Amino acid sequence: MSEKGTVRIEKYESKILKNNPLNDPHVRELPVYLPPSYQTSEKRFPVVFLLSGFTGWGMMNLNENFISESIPQRCDRLISERKMKEMIIVMPDCITKYGGSQFINSTGTGKYEDHIIKELVPYIDSVFRTIPRSESRAVCGKSSGGYGATVLAMKHPGIFGLMCSTAGDMAFEYCYMPDFPKCLAGLEVYGKGHKAMKHFITHEINKKQPKKKNFFDVLNLAGMASCYSPNPSGFKSKGYNFDVPFNLETGELDQKVFDKWLLYDPVRMIERYKDNLKKLKLIFVDAGIYDEFNLHVGARIFCSRLKDKEIRYYHEEFPDTHMNISYRYDRTFEMISRKIKS
Amino acid sequence: MSEKGTVRIEKYESKILKNNPLNDPHVRELPVYLPPSYQTSEKRFPVVFLLSGFTGWGMMNLNENFISESIPQRCDRLISERKMKEMIIVMPDCITKYGGSQFINSTGTGKYEDHIIKELVPYIDSVFRTIPRSESRAVCGKSSGGYGATVLAMKHPGIFGLMCSTAGDMAFEYCYMPDFPKCLAGLEVYGKGHKAMKHFITHEINKKQPKKKNFFDVLNLAGMASCYSPNPSGFKSKGYNFDVPFNLETGELDQKVFDKWLLYDPVRMIERYKDNLKKLKLIFVDAGIYDEFNLHVGARIFCSRLKDKEIRYYHEEFPDTHMNISYRYDRTFEMISRKIKS
Amino acid sequence: MSEKGTVRIEKYESKILKNNPLNDPHVRELPVYLPPSYQTSEKRFPVVFLLSGFTGWGMMNLNENFISESIPQRCDRLISERKMKEMIIVMPDCITKYGGSQFINSTGTGKYEDHIIKELVPYIDSVFRTIPRSESRAVCGKSSGGYGATVLAMKHPGIFGLMCSTAGDMAFEYCYMPDFPKCLAGLEVYGKGHKAMKHFITHEINKKQPKKKNFFDVLNLAGMASCYSPNPSGFKSKGYNFDVPFNLETGELDQKVFDKWLLYDPVRMIERYKDNLKKLKLIFVDAGIYDEFNLHVGARIFCSRLKDKEIRYYHEEFPDTHMNISYRYDRTFEMISRKIKS
Amino acid sequence: MSEKGTVRIEKYESKILKNNPLNDPHVRELPVYLPPSYQTSEKRFPVVFLLSGFTGWGMMNLNENFISESIPQRCDRLISERKMKEMIIVMPDCITKYGGSQFINSTGTGKYEDHIIKELVPYIDSVFRTIPRSESRAVCGKSSGGYGATVLAMKHPGIFGLMCSTAGDMAFEYCYMPDFPKCLAGLEVYGKGHKAMKHFITHEINKKQPKKKNFFDVLNLAGMASCYSPNPSGFKSKGYNFDVPFNLETGELDQKVFDKWLLYDPVRMIERYKDNLKKLKLIFVDAGIYDEFNLHVGARIFCSRLKDKEIRYYHEEFPDTHMNISYRYDRTFEMISRKIKS
Repeated sequence: MSEKGTVRIEKYESKILKNNPLNDPHVRELPVYLPPSYQTSEKRFPVVFLLSGFTGWGMMNLNENFISESIPQRCDRLISERKMKEMIIVMPDCITKYGGSQFINSTGTGKYEDHIIKELVPYIDSVFRTIPRSESRAVCGKSSGGYGATVLAMKHPGIFGLMCSTAGDMAFEYCYMPDFPKCLAGLEVYGKGHKAMKHFITHEINKKQPKKKNFFDVLNLAGMASCYSPNPSGFKSKGYNFDVPFNLETGELDQKVFDKWLLYDPVRMIERYKDNLKKLKLIFVDAGIYDEFNLHVGARIFCSRLKDKEIRYYHEEFPDTHMNISYRYDRTFEMISRKIKS
Repeated sequence: MSEKGTVRIEKYESKILKNNPLNDPHVRELPVYLPPSYQTSEKRFPVVFLLSGFTGWGMMNLNENFISESIPQRCDRLISERKMKEMIIVMPDCITKYGGSQFINSTGTGKYEDHIIKELVPYIDSVFRTIPRSESRAVCGKSSGGYGATVLAMKHPGIFGLMCSTAGDMAFEYCYMPDFPKCLAGLEVYGKGHKAMKHFITHEINKKQPKKKNFFDVLNLAGMASCYSPNPSGFKSKGYNFDVPFNLETGELDQKVFDKWLLYDPVRMIERYKDNLKKLKLIFVDAGIYDEFNLHVGARIFCSRLKDKEIRYYHEEFPDTHMNISYRYDRTFEMISRKIKS
Repeated sequence: MSEKGTVRIEKYESKILKNNPLNDPHVRELPVYLPPSYQTSEKRFPVVFLLSGFTGWGMMNLNENFISESIPQRCDRLISERKMKEMIIVMPDCITKYGGSQFINSTGTGKYEDHIIKELVPYIDSVFRTIPRSESRAVCGKSSGGYGATVLAMKHPGIFGLMCSTAGDMAFEYCYMPDFPKCLAGLEVYGKGHKAMKHFITHEINKKQPKKKNFFDVLNLAGMASCYSPNPSGFKSKGYNFDVPFNLETGELDQKVFDKWLLYDPVRMIERYKDNLKKLKLIFVDAGIYDEFNLHVGARIFCSRLKDKEIRYYHEEFPDTHMNISYRYDRTFEMISRKIKS
Repeated sequence: MSEKGTVRIEKYESKILKNNPLNDPHVRELPVYLPPSYQTSEKRFPVVFLLSGFTGWGMMNLNENFISESIPQRCDRLISERKMKEMIIVMPDCITKYGGSQFINSTGTGKYEDHIIKELVPYIDSVFRTIPRSESRAVCGKSSGGYGATVLAMKHPGIFGLMCSTAGDMAFEYCYMPDFPKCLAGLEVYGKGHKAMKHFITHEINKKQPKKKNFFDVLNLAGMASCYSPNPSGFKSKGYNFDVPFNLETGELDQKVFDKWLLYDPVRMIERYKDNLKKLKLIFVDAGIYDEFNLHVGARIFCSRLKDKEIRYYHEEFPDTHMNISYRYDRTFEMISRKIKS
């Protein structure tokens, strides 16, 4: 029989995102996967918030492709194979003009953390038959989505009782810093110093193709800096509202700015949130051993610190890179299914 | 004001594709872009059939992406910029189990050429306010879609009066043959000779990830062979219904099979269809000079033969590879707009 | 104890190479490795002619490197490990202005085949204590050196009774043809058609650095064409003395010229030289399964044809590319040692 | 006429290198290029010490290659073109078992700085007709040789009055740190933690081929650590005599060890040696803007600090990577020729 789930696409009008610093829309599409029995029963279901990676948003999880499954296809299969519990999957849109919000509150992008915690979680509980408790609510994602999952669960264990991060941004000296020189190279085609970044921000972040070499390195930098080292007053002086963690002429690390970034590094956040982390029913961290951003090293460091604090976790590595690894959601959903309360 | 067009997603039940050799569905989704004035006027519009590349199908043209436009977004912009006429864009689904039909009739895949010519063209003319004449009907595409456009227009100038091919498959000795050794290597992980191909066909063409190395080289071979050298009786003896143009143990070219492929090479078809080609109002051929499949060389050879036959054409090259070149649709739609009758 | 061999560097003044078409020197340095016992005994030793790859020559086998052995170091070790017999290793210099002679006679480069067979072989026998018989004389090499070994043994089984080819040029449609488009791209920076090639020949083949992109693809083409499709009268009309096997504007294969090349393809030469091949005491062919020039496929085809003719051979594959594979000389010397008469 | 220079290969028996920690030979070959007039006159000549890159040593500068010049060929040409003064070029051998000494004194490798300053400089002055003064003695090199030139001149302006560094190791957080994860991956094939490094040191650093993936990343780490963070007592506890600047299980940066490295970073050394640097007659620093080790960024940072200290320098960038850039010696020799006293 293998019943199929259904997808409902909500339009959510956010008060919190209204008038956000980048003038990004405050009305967002919110696809929600409902498992097969949702339609045929009156039961309540656990909920998983699935956070998208950098430059992604919820709706993209519905895209079809010849050789990989969309999230609904994946869930239908996993449920029919009994590898996954019937759960509601919520796929938020937290994209920004610069590629992503990292799911945190920032004066550079907006209050995306609040948007999820204060708006989406209660909204989902009010509209769908959820089990509205932390032990039945998980957050997961890969890449920047894994970062978001890690940080949201760390800060809000009363909301998300389970978290899974696949190749999540961690150990910023290994995942971001090595690309600063590439970003510098990418900027230099547009001019010198701040003017180059201003040009990029103003003229290059759009859907025009082809993109110049190193485009993604610059975009990534802008995206992260707008989250980690916002500088609202910078708009006037430099033409953009964040600080760059290196000298825009030589590339020399600006330790003062980079230290601001490090405050958001999950590896460094453990110390502050260790008590919260102990409350989680599931911490699952994995990464590919050929991850181009060294996120397998990040994951190892993260886990070694959890261990130091006697916090329980599951850690896996798989033989792949950072790309095309959505098949790891199989493992994520499986791990959540084992630990989530239904 | 910049009005936006609308997209209508038709479900088309094909009689011709019913019971096709690969048991692919005969009901297909058919997205159709209607230009802004379609809703606000009673006018009739020219039509463009846009054919997808290998492993693609019509609906994928609606997928959104942070850094590139979907086809409707692209058309909306081009129309508002007055670079493109208001036209109806039809995006067929001619995918097969093996990645694509090349938009031709084959005993290995089905009658996709007939499906387009005998079913979709009249259907579109019956359902939408088209200008139902060849001088107002274009066919275009990139990669395998460019191939399809070339061949359909070549064979049916009374249906499609204009054709554009971006990086279309041509000069098979340069675009396919160099990858035969990679395909061989890709197969060898599954066993020896026909058994390896049978295994691939049976167990590897699906949405499971991760794919093995050289997966796409083998898929491409299977896709093309099922179109160009089908062998329905092969199912019994070998477990798949096509002939491979090289020896599956040594890699040696099987000239007899490859000669069957060459009958479908646009470069070689010119001789047979030169009179048809002369009837076309537009032949536009372009390719990137770093095309990994040497399709810029294919385009040059194709055009040099057109020239020999005194057939008019437009030929362009651009500084890019085979990948991420959907921005070339801008140029395609512009060229069509200049020549199509509205 | 592990005695070491010695190296003698002869200067050989060739009559045959005097006034060669490219004005390459006719006096060449000829390093000869003499095994440890050569100095301490009166014995005679088997001889191995080791042919260098494209852009290489005998003296380069003496170059030292932190992570790989020179030929003398390798032989010293292999002899001390008793994996190799004590043999004299002769390392000819058959380089030309265009990168190599393929060790054949050509009106485009000179009579390098004659140089080896008629000059070097008797010279070595006259100067060193060799066993001057075919069953005690082997020829080997990798890449173009493997090609040379194959062809020289095929044509002169009375001179070379044993031959080893590692990743030797074979199956020209797979090893050369796929690079014609890259060669074309490499030429286009210098102008159009013959002028571009003339410019390359005149101004680019030298030790100036940096080289332009695709330099090696063009060099390889010039090197091979000067050997396989020489055209001495071309100097006047085109500025260089060979024919290119593709159209220099479109890239289209020039089958007439390429057919001239194919006469030199070992795969095609088997038919002509099958009786000679049967006389050989050793045919050893190997190649890496990731060979960028598909020479593992060439080797398979070559061997399958030997098999068809009931000619004995040894065939091996190893998990590597075309580059940095001089460690395969270990296997070559080992195989020769088993079969050569001492 | 264009006279050619001559090369003399000295054998130098070093007292300082005797009984060095790695048991590397203390007798080294020392090739010295003497300019054309050296033989035909009684004149004295300026001297350039040319330091080799990692895994290189003096004699390798004599290796010939089809497409690039050896150092003697280069000097002959530059002198005949009058782009370079007639100078004596000294090419020391400071290689170690682990790939290089960085030309410094280390309890991990030996006193290579002393070897050059206290042995080779006076030896050369005693054997050849040099102008034995700092304003007539330059030191240069690329990659690790550029590092050595920078550091030796910084510390011994009374010996070397001029220095040139092409792509010299600088800004260690950008040139070494990003490769730590690759080194970790390279080690993991041999086991866990220190055992893996011990295995590498004991069994992998040799001329056996093929090398495993990431071999060079591990070798580079071992090479640098033996210079920058030697730990002679480590031999007993770990099986090798240096400390690794990251955790060998997680990859986490070991800041304490890395701080030892940073003491040797030219960027950080400027503060200590600023007075010496002011004494130099020439500081020439260049790097390719696509340098894989970000050494163009290192060069920029280095130069910006020189500027802060009001130290004069020349800084150039060129459009190339870190590889195959020996053609930049042309520029080095030209710059030296302008400033050196003859």
